[in-house]
Amino acid sequence: MKIKITELRKKVLTTLKQNFTQEESNRVADYLLWAEMSGIKTQGIIKLIGTEPLQNIKPKHPIKIEKDTKLSQLINAGACPAPLVSQIATDIVIKKAKEHGFGIVGVHNTFSSNGAQAFYVERIAKEDLIGFMCSRSPSATTAFDSMDPLFGTNPMGFGFPTEKEPIVFDMASSAITWYGLVLAKSRGEKIPANVAIDSNGKITTDPAEAMDGALLPFDRSYKGSGIGMIVEILAGPLVSSAWIDNKTFKEEWGSLFIAIDPNLLVDVKKFKANCSDLIKKIKGSRKREGVKEIRLPGERSRAEYQKALKSGFVDVDETILKELNYI
Amino acid sequence: MKIKITELRKKVLTTLKQNFTQEESNRVADYLLWAEMSGIKTQGIIKLIGTEPLQNIKPKHPIKIEKDTKLSQLINAGACPAPLVSQIATDIVIKKAKEHGFGIVGVHNTFSSNGAQAFYVERIAKEDLIGFMCSRSPSATTAFDSMDPLFGTNPMGFGFPTEKEPIVFDMASSAITWYGLVLAKSRGEKIPANVAIDSNGKITTDPAEAMDGALLPFDRSYKGSGIGMIVEILAGPLVSSAWIDNKTFKEEWGSLFIAIDPNLLVDVKKFKANCSDLIKKIKGSRKREGVKEIRLPGERSRAEYQKALKSGFVDVDETILKELNYI
Repeated sequence: MKIKITELRKKVLTTLKQNFTQEESNRVADYLLWAEMSGIKTQGIIKLIGTEPLQNIKPKHPIKIEKDTKLSQLINAGACPAPLVSQIATDIVIKKAKEHGFGIVGVHNTFSSNGAQAFYVERIAKEDLIGFMCSRSPSATTAFDSMDPLFGTNPMGFGFPTEKEPIVFDMASSAITWYGLVLAKSRGEKIPANVAIDSNGKITTDPAEAMDGALLPFDRSYKGSGIGMIVEILAGPLVSSAWIDNKTFKEEWGSLFIAIDPNLLVDVKKFKANCSDLIKKIKGSRKREGVKEIRLPGERSRAEYQKALKSGFVDVDETILKELNYI
Repeated sequence: MKIKITELRKKVLTTLKQNFTQEESNRVADYLLWAEMSGIKTQGIIKLIGTEPLQNIKPKHPIKIEKDTKLSQLINAGACPAPLVSQIATDIVIKKAKEHGFGIVGVHNTFSSNGAQAFYVERIAKEDLIGFMCSRSPSATTAFDSMDPLFGTNPMGFGFPTEKEPIVFDMASSAITWYGLVLAKSRGEKIPANVAIDSNGKITTDPAEAMDGALLPFDRSYKGSGIGMIVEILAGPLVSSAWIDNKTFKEEWGSLFIAIDPNLLVDVKKFKANCSDLIKKIKGSRKREGVKEIRLPGERSRAEYQKALKSGFVDVDETILKELNYI
């Protein structure tokens, strides 16, 4: 149902302020509202319900900076919510890249996923920097030729500045997200064939069997498996987080943030103009049969976001609003 | 046929020295012998025959450094062979990362492809650094929902240090390499279904039709298309190279090299030990039915290389040796 954005925000803040400061609540709300308005419903205010609602997370200790250099920072999140510490990490990586041309920030020991990576890399790109991030999650995805869950669903995201809105691309390394399994299971639905295997390595369409088994790499080949492995290293050992542990879902989650100033190599104005031209060429190319419009990654969700912003209203699942006593 | 490595190297050097200095010839030979010994035959001494043999390339001007900062360098290659300037770029990016923790080097205006990216990123990883590179080639691969050739075959490579040999992973963003088309055409063979489209956007198995049409992204989905786009930007506008030009095959090729010192975030010794453990866990996981051994990316070619090195002999296509008057 349609709900006024300002009203939803107020309610979300009230929920969050039970356990978080005003500033922390604002930041988490920023992320949740953005996801909801962008139509990324699996990463929006649904995070406030379920078995581990975001607002109930009790950080073990305040955020600790474990290492700091001109170019880098390593953060121990103390099990605070990922969307909160990831915004802090984004601010730091932007600052370092603006000062020195490059910034790299590692975060470990966060609680759960930071949601859609587009949110963070877009913010980096809006500062005229190239943004990259990736995250490691508990072992769920198998490697090529293996049948054990090894890598997380391991998303990665990229952001590039242009003359208008940034180019933003994010993707999971697995053929289906973990939430895709959760949703199918709760609805009693099957999952598509060829996205997951059961614990004996056989393709399954049963989400519960897939949870006991493993997800497949997004392309079912060694390439997707290799990309999953890369993220497992960059957001695992490189940020002092865990790697490949299929015994527990209590392992640390981790994320890596990188920002690069294009001025290190070329004039940023020219770079932005050329990226705009690149977009134009993709969108102006001949469409395959049945395709109405060639969409860039992130284009659909940005349109949804802007539509919501303009109207002042956002469409939210009624059952979620009821569960939160918002209506 | 089997040929002595030292003998092959001598002959290759004689061929190269017609147009290149001793030092340049040595570097190009290093790459060609490595590819040949690694069993990457499509990127080895086959580059010395055909319509544009490597040794006949006449650089337009000496390599020019167009920009240099503490962390970065932009190189105009003057149309010199990519395997030569890419080794120079690799040396520079290693030096910068060793001095400052991070290095980024862009190369544009190279002649043709630098071959297997594994060669360069492995060298970076052997210096206890994380290596990344990617390259843009002439427009050949379409984007999701498009039917025009837009991106290059756009390979990328990653290298990570471990306690033993580095983890090395490289891949093309297209479902088939351009050389795959060339080879199929010359042999009068078909290409697999679902790797390329003709100029009308229909799936084709005819390599000549595919050359007039476009290659598909490696996973035939928006994810592979997004990765192709990322490489097109990083090794295109970011390095002063071309981007999306489907009119000519004389556009500039470009490459980006990045090296990151893990010490920016964590202790490199610990990082290497953890990467070794990660390998062990992947290789020790349960194999899918019919799989004899779980191989890491690059493992097979490294084994081939070491076998050749040990025996002192390398297996080379006899017709190539004859064409080069080596036998």
